[in-house]
Amino acid sequence: MGPGVVAHLVRLGVLSSTSGHASVVSINLFVALLCACIVLGHLLEENRWVNESITALIIGLCTGVVILLTTKGKSSHILVFSEDLFFIYLLPPIIFNAGFQVKKKRFFRNFMTITLFGAVGTMISFFTISIGAIAIFSRMNIGTLEVGDFLAIGAIFSATDSVCTLQVLNQDETPLLYSLVFGEGVVNDATSVVLFNALQHFDLNKIDVAVVLKFLGNFCYLFLSSTFLGVFAGLLSAYIIKKLYIGRHSTDREVALMMLMAYLSYMLAELSDLSGILTVFFCGIVMSHYTWHNVTESSRVTTKHAFATLSFIAETFLFLYVGMDALDIEKWKFASDSPGKSIGISSILLGLVLVGRAAFVFPLSFLSNLTKKADFEKITWRQQIVIWWAGLMRGAVSIALAYNKFTRSGHTQLHGNAIMITSTITVVLFSTMVFGMMTKPLIQFLLPASSHTVTSEPSSPKSLHSPLLASMQGSDLETASHSHIVRPSSLRMLLSKPTHTVHYYWRKFDDALMRPMFGGRGFVPFSPGSPTEQSIHWGR
Amino acid sequence: MGPGVVAHLVRLGVLSSTSGHASVVSINLFVALLCACIVLGHLLEENRWVNESITALIIGLCTGVVILLTTKGKSSHILVFSEDLFFIYLLPPIIFNAGFQVKKKRFFRNFMTITLFGAVGTMISFFTISIGAIAIFSRMNIGTLEVGDFLAIGAIFSATDSVCTLQVLNQDETPLLYSLVFGEGVVNDATSVVLFNALQHFDLNKIDVAVVLKFLGNFCYLFLSSTFLGVFAGLLSAYIIKKLYIGRHSTDREVALMMLMAYLSYMLAELSDLSGILTVFFCGIVMSHYTWHNVTESSRVTTKHAFATLSFIAETFLFLYVGMDALDIEKWKFASDSPGKSIGISSILLGLVLVGRAAFVFPLSFLSNLTKKADFEKITWRQQIVIWWAGLMRGAVSIALAYNKFTRSGHTQLHGNAIMITSTITVVLFSTMVFGMMTKPLIQFLLPASSHTVTSEPSSPKSLHSPLLASMQGSDLETASHSHIVRPSSLRMLLSKPTHTVHYYWRKFDDALMRPMFGGRGFVPFSPGSPTEQSIHWGR
Repeated sequence: MGPGVVAHLVRLGVLSSTSGHASVVSINLFVALLCACIVLGHLLEENRWVNESITALIIGLCTGVVILLTTKGKSSHILVFSEDLFFIYLLPPIIFNAGFQVKKKRFFRNFMTITLFGAVGTMISFFTISIGAIAIFSRMNIGTLEVGDFLAIGAIFSATDSVCTLQVLNQDETPLLYSLVFGEGVVNDATSVVLFNALQHFDLNKIDVAVVLKFLGNFCYLFLSSTFLGVFAGLLSAYIIKKLYIGRHSTDREVALMMLMAYLSYMLAELSDLSGILTVFFCGIVMSHYTWHNVTESSRVTTKHAFATLSFIAETFLFLYVGMDALDIEKWKFASDSPGKSIGISSILLGLVLVGRAAFVFPLSFLSNLTKKADFEKITWRQQIVIWWAGLMRGAVSIALAYNKFTRSGHTQLHGNAIMITSTITVVLFSTMVFGMMTKPLIQFLLPASSHTVTSEPSSPKSLHSPLLASMQGSDLETASHSHIVRPSSLRMLLSKPTHTVHYYWRKFDDALMRPMFGGRGFVPFSPGSPTEQSIHWGR
Repeated sequence: MGPGVVAHLVRLGVLSSTSGHASVVSINLFVALLCACIVLGHLLEENRWVNESITALIIGLCTGVVILLTTKGKSSHILVFSEDLFFIYLLPPIIFNAGFQVKKKRFFRNFMTITLFGAVGTMISFFTISIGAIAIFSRMNIGTLEVGDFLAIGAIFSATDSVCTLQVLNQDETPLLYSLVFGEGVVNDATSVVLFNALQHFDLNKIDVAVVLKFLGNFCYLFLSSTFLGVFAGLLSAYIIKKLYIGRHSTDREVALMMLMAYLSYMLAELSDLSGILTVFFCGIVMSHYTWHNVTESSRVTTKHAFATLSFIAETFLFLYVGMDALDIEKWKFASDSPGKSIGISSILLGLVLVGRAAFVFPLSFLSNLTKKADFEKITWRQQIVIWWAGLMRGAVSIALAYNKFTRSGHTQLHGNAIMITSTITVVLFSTMVFGMMTKPLIQFLLPASSHTVTSEPSSPKSLHSPLLASMQGSDLETASHSHIVRPSSLRMLLSKPTHTVHYYWRKFDDALMRPMFGGRGFVPFSPGSPTEQSIHWGR
């Protein structure tokens, strides 16, 4: 018997309020809007100002207005922002796909810089924004905000939106910037988790050396154990698929197993209070390095595109959701009596975000450049501006944290809390739309296409023109074609080119131990120009 | 900032009870069990008794026992059966994939028989079980059951489990049986929706000609409008993808659009009180006939396997869920004082299911055989037994309907209702496990492999040996190689071979009008032995 009974049940009022007719209606609405976003995004593909996130945000805002008008302001509870939906369902596929498709070699080559930006940079940004907020807001009359609240504001607004970054930066056009800004975003998350938890647990009146040391230890534990969990899950999936040779019976089982084990790693990290984002990111990297090479050819094509599609749907949904939620009438009710003050606070916060990011991007880039010998490895002045700019967007993570901090335990009615919520939404909308719109033109202006290949390392042209397996084969081909640069020699080598040497020994270890056990490219010799490569790109 | 805050929030008790630590734990548990099911299912692949559903059911039951023991019987509410989860998230991918991968030609050739079995057969089964229940149960002392309850029992137990059928029958080995039994299951759903709604709306004391006519009209409306909605959604997706040529910019957008439009058709049908199952099934058929040929080569591989994978995960999840839910302690509490009576009722229901199905399979097969001239088109005696047997399994749909009927508006405590719930669970478990286990051996005994190709129509050998695009290319190749059988002639032709003639004119219409507009195979000439075909099967 059929699902028509669902609608029937709804009419009878049997189901609870969270899952009734309203949910069927809102699922219909969201799915239809998602389709509209995809079609519009396709039509606006060549527009230099608008990207997919902004399209989704605007469509979400417009729909919100329509709903608000048709229901006369009563719709606020249908489309309320849910942290669960965000952290449990939308974020994992996005971050996993980012790890799965990232150019591994480039990511690890810049690993030190990424960690520096993500960990130290986020701290600097946090302190800058917190101190700025204390200095400015305490002189304004915006209700009862304590030191803890100001520090929370610092944490909320130092969380960059890695999802939006993925959309404005192009991995193929600006690979160095992509890996730096995106990698920073991932590490930024780990830092933010520790910061946020620390603010809840530590006594803020007694800050001494012991607290700071505990804090640092906590961070290292979180970073290492999250990474380990992700790597372990990836290797386990590679081992199972290689040993049991699951593709023998069913392609679908391979794909399902990869999908489920990646999600399991994320949820296990959540369960253990680790950073699920870091875990699933490294799980994606390991899976693309080992597991992906153990599955059948059709599973490879399927996983590559299915993961990208799921991530794409989740991203679009997210921006649609944020756009719609922004008009939730409840939040604006308490802040509406002082519109001038609300705008003032949002502007101040935006200014602090700009300053807070500048306060670490330029000094840390300078520090990072000091350690590099070769000119092409250094971060140029123009690239620094792009890094600064591309990380200015604040997104759903900021909103989720603001909700968590300022709507808890019935304090929503407080004037200060209400203003903080609406200001967060304003900052998120403004930064995503205005900063986001300006990013593409800014990159085109500062780094015109001709200079890309000069500033970034020369990449194999194949990776740009093979649409199907681009990033996978690209990264491997790259590895192969560049291996002649690295020559094993001596301690002097390690000191002068530490990353390259580490990479060389990693390759040796990988070939000797890891690949025989977990599979990977080493097992299936790849000959360029083989029938596979040509034919797999066939199509219309 | 990161998702570690979810766990943090849980500790603070901010989130509601439905979405807290418990949900993180149960998601972890379910995902881990799904992985176990996949690995075990792979290892048991060649076992002739066990299939994937039974593995999942058994694992679910065992986990239920473990949870019950560790929590000392307090776990009943974590894993409670949710109709929403079933009808909104699990069923659509399963039925869509069935439509997407079904051998279209065979399905439409048997269309009349399928409708006969699905509509008339389900009615016969419904009346047989209802009358049997009235005759037997009214003499037993099982609480206050009214005529409406007995009719509901008839409706609940005439819903065959099309999901389980998909797993025990093999589309390649027994194609005729597969399309008959599965097609019947889909039509069965539409019939059941009408039956169930009718039981709620019509006054059961006044059954006259007008009511019956209204009932029949309602059924035709439901069937036609659901089909139309599905076909419309499929054609719209084909038209959009063909006109806008979305694959030009992004493969992921094509895949996402197909996925979302299929889901949208299901949800729209739900919203309009139609049969979402029928809608999404026909949407799948249309998408595989038109849309699938308009997308890029990599999208084709991806959609084929991604849809199959999602369906596979949903199926496994479903059986795991039913297995776990069966041990929910609440339900057994009220029935436990009379275990003998509970077993008796379950046995009687099982007997009625057996009789009810026999009461329409054999007479209707006889009727269907009367209309067929050629011997190979007739349903043999052995095949009739398999059709009867393969449709005996009852599944999650029965459980969902039983919950809807017998736990509504606080009547759970009633003795009769409690016994009905536990009996339904018993029947579902028993029929899936025992009947399900015996289906594969029964088919092997009644229809040994050598006779398959004799009883079913000779199928193109290619469709069995091309693992990647088997059913798609298979069905199209089939169409091409058999088209010489059908020769356009006269009215005599239409009378003697109505299905073939309809098919011939459909082909003409398809080629002349539909394909130029909506795309499809006709547009991309397929040459067997082209590089694509060889290379796409490359792999390990």
